[in-house]
Amino acid sequence: MTNLTAWVSQNTPNFISSTLLATTPAPTEAEPVSNSLVLAAVLLTLVVIYSASKIGAEICTRINLPTVLGELVGGVVIGISALHLLVFPEGGMTAADSLIMQFLEFTANLSPQAAEEVFRSQSEVISVLAELGVVILLFEVGLESDLKELLKVGPQAVTVAVVGVAAPFAGGTLGLFYLFGVPLIPAIFAGAALTATSIGITSKVLTEMGKLNTTEGNIILGAAVLDDVLGIIVLAVVAGLAKTGEIEVGNVIYLIISAAVFLVGAIIVGRLLNPYFVKLINKMQTRGELLLTSLVFAFVLSYIGGVIQLEAILGSFAAGLVLAETEKQEDLQKQLFPIADMLVPIFFVAVGAKTNLGVLNPTNPTNQEALVLAGFLILVAIVGKLITGATVFGKPGINRLAVGIGMIPRGEVGLVFVSVGAASGSLNKATEAAIIMMVIVTTFLAPPLLRLVFQSGSAEDLSTELSGALSSETSEPETK
Amino acid sequence: MTNLTAWVSQNTPNFISSTLLATTPAPTEAEPVSNSLVLAAVLLTLVVIYSASKIGAEICTRINLPTVLGELVGGVVIGISALHLLVFPEGGMTAADSLIMQFLEFTANLSPQAAEEVFRSQSEVISVLAELGVVILLFEVGLESDLKELLKVGPQAVTVAVVGVAAPFAGGTLGLFYLFGVPLIPAIFAGAALTATSIGITSKVLTEMGKLNTTEGNIILGAAVLDDVLGIIVLAVVAGLAKTGEIEVGNVIYLIISAAVFLVGAIIVGRLLNPYFVKLINKMQTRGELLLTSLVFAFVLSYIGGVIQLEAILGSFAAGLVLAETEKQEDLQKQLFPIADMLVPIFFVAVGAKTNLGVLNPTNPTNQEALVLAGFLILVAIVGKLITGATVFGKPGINRLAVGIGMIPRGEVGLVFVSVGAASGSLNKATEAAIIMMVIVTTFLAPPLLRLVFQSGSAEDLSTELSGALSSETSEPETK
Repeated sequence: MTNLTAWVSQNTPNFISSTLLATTPAPTEAEPVSNSLVLAAVLLTLVVIYSASKIGAEICTRINLPTVLGELVGGVVIGISALHLLVFPEGGMTAADSLIMQFLEFTANLSPQAAEEVFRSQSEVISVLAELGVVILLFEVGLESDLKELLKVGPQAVTVAVVGVAAPFAGGTLGLFYLFGVPLIPAIFAGAALTATSIGITSKVLTEMGKLNTTEGNIILGAAVLDDVLGIIVLAVVAGLAKTGEIEVGNVIYLIISAAVFLVGAIIVGRLLNPYFVKLINKMQTRGELLLTSLVFAFVLSYIGGVIQLEAILGSFAAGLVLAETEKQEDLQKQLFPIADMLVPIFFVAVGAKTNLGVLNPTNPTNQEALVLAGFLILVAIVGKLITGATVFGKPGINRLAVGIGMIPRGEVGLVFVSVGAASGSLNKATEAAIIMMVIVTTFLAPPLLRLVFQSGSAEDLSTELSGALSSETSEPETK
Repeated sequence: MTNLTAWVSQNTPNFISSTLLATTPAPTEAEPVSNSLVLAAVLLTLVVIYSASKIGAEICTRINLPTVLGELVGGVVIGISALHLLVFPEGGMTAADSLIMQFLEFTANLSPQAAEEVFRSQSEVISVLAELGVVILLFEVGLESDLKELLKVGPQAVTVAVVGVAAPFAGGTLGLFYLFGVPLIPAIFAGAALTATSIGITSKVLTEMGKLNTTEGNIILGAAVLDDVLGIIVLAVVAGLAKTGEIEVGNVIYLIISAAVFLVGAIIVGRLLNPYFVKLINKMQTRGELLLTSLVFAFVLSYIGGVIQLEAILGSFAAGLVLAETEKQEDLQKQLFPIADMLVPIFFVAVGAKTNLGVLNPTNPTNQEALVLAGFLILVAIVGKLITGATVFGKPGINRLAVGIGMIPRGEVGLVFVSVGAASGSLNKATEAAIIMMVIVTTFLAPPLLRLVFQSGSAEDLSTELSGALSSETSEPETK
């Protein structure tokens, strides 16, 4: 295949592309040609993404690590930190920085300007596909969850979420301010970035291990969803604070009410509509009736979730929860399986590819300061979530360590804080880099730890032993 | 849900979006916020597309028409011709012309400039998803086909393809030039636009009816693939002619050789690699191993097909043909089913949505001239393909009419001719509109006709009776 491509590119007379392109004067008019080039770029990118995700996943499975870690690492390898195959324009990257685009330029005889245009479109499409991937992932997770079981651990999940937001926020902000002399606003931003758990990573690991429907899994999942909502509220507060210097009370109240109305409302309305949904599908006679009707439901909720400043994934998760209660659940789950297989890896590989390990390079002076801050933030990030396991009440014999570890990964939400903070000018380079380091470490650390702690123990003795170790560890930041 | 959205949009304090957006100064910097808006726009668009496709398909099934026609008509209803929910920037449309974007603007408190940006990204993403849909469709069609059966009717398919390109091209060009006094270059463009059959529409109808693996189905499919290649060669010739006034012989030779090397090479190399492919998959242990490995194979071939100036769909079709010969065929087909269900309707609805029925409005003076030209072009388009059925040799008892009708739909390829011709300045408005009308009529006419002719007859008597009618009809243009 490579030979063929090389042969073709060497033997493609230049006048072909010039003939075809020359007939379309302005770049905006070049729809047919440019569309097929964007498609070619997207196809090539998907080939690279799938290859990286499968190689990473297969290696991780063999050394007994979660496959999602393999997908993340696969993304890092092809991304901005290493091979530069898949880069995104966000960090000021251009088509010249992307090996995929250079390959396309070479094989399709593309001009650098055209390549730049294709690069932007390709990045846009891949980003949306990645987001669609996590929307589908959460839909799948919702579909595999049991709303009743989730509600049973509701009080525990609320406690875990609230403690898991409050402890790292307070620890991070106060620590940076008092111990490291960081000014208050950046300290608050960094503290806020420590709050929200990445539902995507945690739920993927739980699903992989078949632990989604355990008590621990339900607590983690419920708490991660609430955490996400709390994180968004914290973000709104902090962003307002950075801008006007005061807290926008109306804003906070609006977000709390809309989140509550949305999540509760979606589930109540959804459950009321369930019988009609099943009836409608049973009356339909054409291919894809169940899948498309379900996707319409999930996407409507995702749209509302996105548009009211919450997150699209909350909508698809709620849709999954609701549809899990219908008789169609099993069928739908089967049909969603290959779609998730196709779209979800794009998300994890993209997260990895966007992760710039350059911030970990200690030879850069900014990074030296950042590394110290990062060390502290990572400690607070881990300990602040680990202690949440200790707060679970009324569930004797539970694996408290697993709950705590399940809340550790910060993933994409932490990065949103960084970008909003950086754009508002309230974060300096070192603090920014430190937050990114914290996100990287927690994201990559949590999957293997979670697997370890779940594998080592349904055995309660081990669990209690470890939570003994945990409570001595958790007292550490208090005494600091 | 509608009430909720209305409530939310009425009660969203303006300062939320302004707070969040104001922290991101330049529009290019607004990545996190704008990304989630693009996602919201795409989700909403998919909701509209799926609803239109399902409503159209369900109605068509009930009145015994092919579902793909329902999807096309569903697209027309939501597209530029009617509701303006889904429009694309190609025709000079802006966010203000798109009801989906206006709804998003309203529900997400978007500024018109931001809406314009989101509109462009949304159109780009939906276009690529539609293209991905037809890539997956042809992959599925290839996977359901039998290469050996296809090769058995190879000579017949070649004859059908060559006659089906030559007859409409000659008839259209000469007719417009001599009968209607159209200048030579536009006449050649119009004739060329009559050549290429839309594989997508024909193969979808055949699959729906379970006729893909009949002798007729194999001839149609084989001929449609060759037709596509011939159409691309004709396009290159015509575009060169329009530009320089002479035929670029090197270009034509390159295209013929690359097409032959690509199609034959992909199949030979693919068959050689097949055993290793199966071995590799059997060794893999993580979820999605079969699907992703197959998609990598299909997308690599699609990429090559796209990059060497052929079409991406030829690559995925070849990949499907090759993988159909492995023991994994059945599994893969099952997994591909929901993915096709999700992506293929986007293609057909988008084709419908982009179809501007305004060109059929006879009150517009340009259209009156166009309607006359269109009447002639449609006649040539239909008759020129119908006679191909008569050329099928050595297959007694075959449904010749079905073969001819299967070649009728022109679809997207015809539209590429229009856009290249219009951009080169060699097509006037009336000829352009006439070609578009021809594409519309052949595309929408073929699915119901094909179903009719296949349903009415495995009965040979009817078939011969009809091909009697056909041969009297085919003599018509000769005497003209």
